[in-house]
Amino acid sequence: MNFSIIIMILGTIILLTGAFFLLPVITGVIYGEYHIALIYLFLGGAYVVCGYLIRKLHKPEKDTFYAKEGFVAVALSWIVMSLLGAFPFMLTGEIPALADALFETVSGFTTTGSSILTDVEALSHASLIWRSFTHWVGGMGVLVFMLAVLPMTGGSSMNLMKAESPGPSVGKLVPKIRHTAFLLYAIYGIMTVILVLLLLMFGMPLFDSLCTAFGTAGTGGFGILNSSMGHYSPLLQNIVTVFMLLFGVNFSFYYYILIRKQEEAFAMEEIRWYFIIYAAAVVLITLNLRTGADVQVGKSVADTIRFAAFQVSSVMTTTGFSTADFNRWPAFSRTILVLVMFIGACAGSTGGGMKVSRILLYFRQIRRELGKQIHPRTVKVLKMDGRTLEKDVLHSASVFLMAYVVIFALSVLIITLENKDLTTSFTAVAATINNIGPGLNEVGPTGNFHGFSPLSKYVFIFDMLAGRLELFPMLLLFAPDTWKK
Amino acid sequence: MNFSIIIMILGTIILLTGAFFLLPVITGVIYGEYHIALIYLFLGGAYVVCGYLIRKLHKPEKDTFYAKEGFVAVALSWIVMSLLGAFPFMLTGEIPALADALFETVSGFTTTGSSILTDVEALSHASLIWRSFTHWVGGMGVLVFMLAVLPMTGGSSMNLMKAESPGPSVGKLVPKIRHTAFLLYAIYGIMTVILVLLLLMFGMPLFDSLCTAFGTAGTGGFGILNSSMGHYSPLLQNIVTVFMLLFGVNFSFYYYILIRKQEEAFAMEEIRWYFIIYAAAVVLITLNLRTGADVQVGKSVADTIRFAAFQVSSVMTTTGFSTADFNRWPAFSRTILVLVMFIGACAGSTGGGMKVSRILLYFRQIRRELGKQIHPRTVKVLKMDGRTLEKDVLHSASVFLMAYVVIFALSVLIITLENKDLTTSFTAVAATINNIGPGLNEVGPTGNFHGFSPLSKYVFIFDMLAGRLELFPMLLLFAPDTWKK
Repeated sequence: MNFSIIIMILGTIILLTGAFFLLPVITGVIYGEYHIALIYLFLGGAYVVCGYLIRKLHKPEKDTFYAKEGFVAVALSWIVMSLLGAFPFMLTGEIPALADALFETVSGFTTTGSSILTDVEALSHASLIWRSFTHWVGGMGVLVFMLAVLPMTGGSSMNLMKAESPGPSVGKLVPKIRHTAFLLYAIYGIMTVILVLLLLMFGMPLFDSLCTAFGTAGTGGFGILNSSMGHYSPLLQNIVTVFMLLFGVNFSFYYYILIRKQEEAFAMEEIRWYFIIYAAAVVLITLNLRTGADVQVGKSVADTIRFAAFQVSSVMTTTGFSTADFNRWPAFSRTILVLVMFIGACAGSTGGGMKVSRILLYFRQIRRELGKQIHPRTVKVLKMDGRTLEKDVLHSASVFLMAYVVIFALSVLIITLENKDLTTSFTAVAATINNIGPGLNEVGPTGNFHGFSPLSKYVFIFDMLAGRLELFPMLLLFAPDTWKK
Repeated sequence: MNFSIIIMILGTIILLTGAFFLLPVITGVIYGEYHIALIYLFLGGAYVVCGYLIRKLHKPEKDTFYAKEGFVAVALSWIVMSLLGAFPFMLTGEIPALADALFETVSGFTTTGSSILTDVEALSHASLIWRSFTHWVGGMGVLVFMLAVLPMTGGSSMNLMKAESPGPSVGKLVPKIRHTAFLLYAIYGIMTVILVLLLLMFGMPLFDSLCTAFGTAGTGGFGILNSSMGHYSPLLQNIVTVFMLLFGVNFSFYYYILIRKQEEAFAMEEIRWYFIIYAAAVVLITLNLRTGADVQVGKSVADTIRFAAFQVSSVMTTTGFSTADFNRWPAFSRTILVLVMFIGACAGSTGGGMKVSRILLYFRQIRRELGKQIHPRTVKVLKMDGRTLEKDVLHSASVFLMAYVVIFALSVLIITLENKDLTTSFTAVAATINNIGPGLNEVGPTGNFHGFSPLSKYVFIFDMLAGRLELFPMLLLFAPDTWKK
């Protein structure tokens, strides 16, 4: 294990986190929250100095940088960044307990959006914007950001990007990593700016627009109001519906469009299925809400469609905003929401979940296995987007499912020590490991994660990180072999 | 597709089902239920004649018999057998509706033990013993029985046995299939007789002993009393606890013991883990019941252990008997029960679930994947019982998990159309696809499947058959390619 390069990366992460505090400092000053701004300023300064010193004094001995180092560096970076990001919440006294502050920050960076706050509106503006900004940083990935803005001394940084990018295989868009990372952040940034402008244009205040855009772009889901998005006009809600969906699309799509390779862009099967699943879920829920529901959701059919379209978009992209209390929707609609929670968004997007492309891989493997029983001698090669799928990719996706099920089951088991109802325990784990935000019952859109014990909160923290980093980086931290020289 | 051989097999199944009716006929006569006995006699006679004629008049054209024919023959045999077995319930008027009678019979043959009956004790003795006897037949498999007692004209009957035997790979115990099938049934029969004798010796009436033994041996779980096993003495309950566990053991173990290959028997890793998981679950539940429960389960610690030992044995072997209303146990204990529902018993036993050996395969593949990240160049071969695991076996186990998750999710989705609570819907599917019997809430040990719509009942019927036959035979029935010439 090349520890020296990992320390160098951690130093950079410390420095960057400090720099990110500039946003809450400015916000605090604007809103006259000087006491809060000072805390962010002091901490941010300390982080920058500390990170700078580590980078300056600690030169990596070797350039060698393998997949293992990539995974460990990413996992440790996310843990360090979450701790550093949690301290201001504790020092300002807004979230005094470590388990709570860490939960909130991990929930932010992993773009989960689950909260332990019972009254969001009590938070200072500085802390609110910092909380929402963690979504934006975590959505595309802080290490991708690092690669985009800071030169890496040697080593193949591909392994870093691989470990942080969601989905079964990271498409190397352009040969040069730094260029790829930069392009991704450019697309991401421009789309965020467009969203902010649209929200402003249709009447959302600037502060709200920024926070909402950060939460939408990162598919995070922290609201700044206790009613989440229910407070805003239907038009604003629809804009957010569309943008959540857009940020759940594989970013390769935008890249192809950008370089005028429309054909390749529209040939991406994952994206087609992403929209098919989305449309099917909206139609089924709308039908169910109009016919089977005791509670009326929306006065007209158009209203019901708006609620359904928003909620499916929010849950499938693993954002987690809400405009209605879907906890009171009929069981069929709730089950569809839980199913799309697991399916999740596209690989290579800012969304979480298992990813549409993995689900496609599973269905194709089932079909191939059935075919093998019927024609045992024909060897069928599986393809996606016209390209043959490597055995390694298929195998990794299979093992992902196994690890996912195991982590899920063990998490639920520990959570049920609290003796809460099974739907709460099950969907709380589903909401965190898939980086959604709300679940059902106690953790439904009107509830939160406040009532759990610190033990459970640490389990959720693990699940959020494992979900965001696609399980293996977090698991590797616990494998004794990782730490052998 | 060699249809002619499939018809021949179906003819044999019809004949055998008719022959099995001898047991309810005799029972009916003994208990003076002449009207009921006559129905079984008439139907049984008709089946035998019908099956005999099919076998006589329809000679298969070819001997060729591939995996595909094996799967289709097994799936169709189970459907035909279930229909034939359901008719007497309808004709006697004891279970008049087709969906109900079929549900009950499929639940019997697949050794699930879920019931739609609200008052079991109202059934005639003839129907009660037939209902329990379906467990015994289904436990080891009707086609295995057929292979053991009737000569197959040519063809490799291995493919039949493969399709019906549970677990990732069927161990060919002895080279000759017929001999293997006979041996399996011999071990099965002797163990059942021992159990009956023990139950009689410690005070259970003969009729109860037979029904209980059938339900235990097949790991089925139909009770003949509304209180399931709660009515009997602690000693009788403990005997059943031990025998459920024994019937959940891979039968290769007994075979090795029989031929004095103790070393090979005790080297079977699956069995070791089966008992480790069992013991761990009992200990955790006992601790939880003694410390965290609102309801007192058992007066002394010994009582609590007895309840926990019985329930874990019952659920893990997928039998489904109960001595306590575990629905009222704390969430942690319930979650453990749900987890062992999914894990299930050993491959090559009469139990269901995903099977301990598959879980072992999954854990080993996760560990290997982690190892591959740490040492990318070392190729590690996976082993079980000292033997290298073939790629095909690993791949099948992976695809099994995918198909399992997909069938599970779609089933829950359809069931929730009824708008019952999610725990009921989820555990009802878990209880049927894993061939357990009771689930939680409405389908808990004191509840039943009476309140579901016919649509849901057919979904459960599919799930029970899919679970018993390890998914692929039932899926193949729906693949259009299967039916092409």
